[in-house]
Amino acid sequence: MLKIAIDAVGGDYYPQNPVKGAIMVLEEREDIHIILLGPEELVQNEIAKQGYSGDRLTVVNAPEIIGMDESPSVALKTKKHSSIAIGLTMHAQGKCDAFFSAGNTGALLGASMFILGKIEGVLRPTIGSIYPSIEGNKLMLDVGANIDVKPEALVQFGIMGKVFVENILGIKNPKLGLMNIGEEEEKGREAVRQAYAMLRERDDFVGNIEGRDVMKAKADVYICDGFVGNLLLKLGESIPENILEIIRRSERAKTLSKEELGLIKSVMLDALAPFDYQLIGGVPFLGINGVSMVGHGGSTPLAIKNSILSAEKIVLKKVNEQIKAALN
Amino acid sequence: MLKIAIDAVGGDYYPQNPVKGAIMVLEEREDIHIILLGPEELVQNEIAKQGYSGDRLTVVNAPEIIGMDESPSVALKTKKHSSIAIGLTMHAQGKCDAFFSAGNTGALLGASMFILGKIEGVLRPTIGSIYPSIEGNKLMLDVGANIDVKPEALVQFGIMGKVFVENILGIKNPKLGLMNIGEEEEKGREAVRQAYAMLRERDDFVGNIEGRDVMKAKADVYICDGFVGNLLLKLGESIPENILEIIRRSERAKTLSKEELGLIKSVMLDALAPFDYQLIGGVPFLGINGVSMVGHGGSTPLAIKNSILSAEKIVLKKVNEQIKAALN
Repeated sequence: MLKIAIDAVGGDYYPQNPVKGAIMVLEEREDIHIILLGPEELVQNEIAKQGYSGDRLTVVNAPEIIGMDESPSVALKTKKHSSIAIGLTMHAQGKCDAFFSAGNTGALLGASMFILGKIEGVLRPTIGSIYPSIEGNKLMLDVGANIDVKPEALVQFGIMGKVFVENILGIKNPKLGLMNIGEEEEKGREAVRQAYAMLRERDDFVGNIEGRDVMKAKADVYICDGFVGNLLLKLGESIPENILEIIRRSERAKTLSKEELGLIKSVMLDALAPFDYQLIGGVPFLGINGVSMVGHGGSTPLAIKNSILSAEKIVLKKVNEQIKAALN
Repeated sequence: MLKIAIDAVGGDYYPQNPVKGAIMVLEEREDIHIILLGPEELVQNEIAKQGYSGDRLTVVNAPEIIGMDESPSVALKTKKHSSIAIGLTMHAQGKCDAFFSAGNTGALLGASMFILGKIEGVLRPTIGSIYPSIEGNKLMLDVGANIDVKPEALVQFGIMGKVFVENILGIKNPKLGLMNIGEEEEKGREAVRQAYAMLRERDDFVGNIEGRDVMKAKADVYICDGFVGNLLLKLGESIPENILEIIRRSERAKTLSKEELGLIKSVMLDALAPFDYQLIGGVPFLGINGVSMVGHGGSTPLAIKNSILSAEKIVLKKVNEQIKAALN
């Protein structure tokens, strides 16, 4: 039976959301065992409160909590008994098959690098994020782990991202696109131009992707450095809320009935649910020698459930072995 | 009387849109003279077709047309009689007060640098763009003219942008924000971190702005390099069309009547009109020793009219003198 370890004290709503997400998985599936890590009493109380009593849930005591805004390097040095440190160590020792946290991304990445290490041949492990489009979810990477990126690493992001979207998003023959400020190959920063020259030889490369084309699904994997990706991701995440607010404040809104405004809001929220980071499951650090997944701090129980089920897929489909093969 | 020169063969819809925009201004205002530049017969025919017969419209023959996708450096070398080259030369000679084109941005910037030069003290002239927010229009800059930018130049972008939004957008006490991937000052690329350290001393600096905060109006001037700005701008421009398409394809849309879908579309387009680049007037190259404005290739006649009226404001408010003073 697959064992997946969950940080019970990660994210903005702990322990309730991680515990709830874990219980949702346990209620839906009979072949997954979950390990919850956090201060034992806190976690046990929450489990009791939410009322799970089966035997596929274990609590491992991890008394220290790393805050969302804590410096990753300081946290990892001073908090050896955090859920992140203990959970990843258990994973390295083979005591669980994957680890998920909605907590401090930097700390999780740092600890994953230190405790699990990189897949052989990987220059820089990367973190991607689901990006919604008119044709469903796509993957953008990197979205914040790597600020300055060499062209060779950008190409690897694309290759690793492709394995992810094929296996986890179920996209057949995924296409790679390079985020840039024009279609022509001589556009953009030096590293981007060099990455273009390397990617050009690949059949799965569709060329440069401009900002206007991300939501148009011109590719399945959007390659960029973490500075650009983080800005584009967060702008995208902010669309539903801000567009609704712009509509609410518009002159036109003053001519509408309460029912009409309600309809518009409700249709937009339904249609734009794919943009809602609180519903989107986590994405693994690609290139890490293990399955270490991070979710948004605001992850709902449903997002955490989805993350756990993605982690299962990553393990079962041997994504890391496929990455290793694809990089060679 | 103010004389404003317009590229009659710039943009995707010439000569009709530039000619129409010019005539709209002439019909609304009696104190502006417009000079239209382009192949004389083409332009005269269009004016006759649209039916303007007053005496505040002059045509200056500029037989060569620079294409939207033409290499700026090649175009400027080989087409000495383009509307851009002749119009800017007239401006440099004092024969007109400003020049506007919806044409090839790179060619216009290159020619502006060569023919008009920089304002004393300016490191890099920059091109900004209006960015809509829940509290109205803001300015993002640079959006494509400068890919790799030194920290000192980023700071100057902010100072020049501030003069623009105060005078042209009418924002009182504008605040400067630095596009970054986190709120903390140690976040981001080296140049961005150094720019933060310089900006920190200013009372008008509100700190780093994340992607999610652009539309929230956390600042009035968003400072970034042209790679980041171009991607954020084009993603923003694509929002209305793509969001409508995502709604149309959603499961929820299948439950709606034709009337309900029509209402949603119409309200969204009304409310999101500020995002519509076809309606937004041009923005000047800030830092150029003259008034050289560029508009979106898809500019409608209304956008061109708005651009001409902005150009007038820039001249009358002596924006360049203010920039010179602000940089000292």
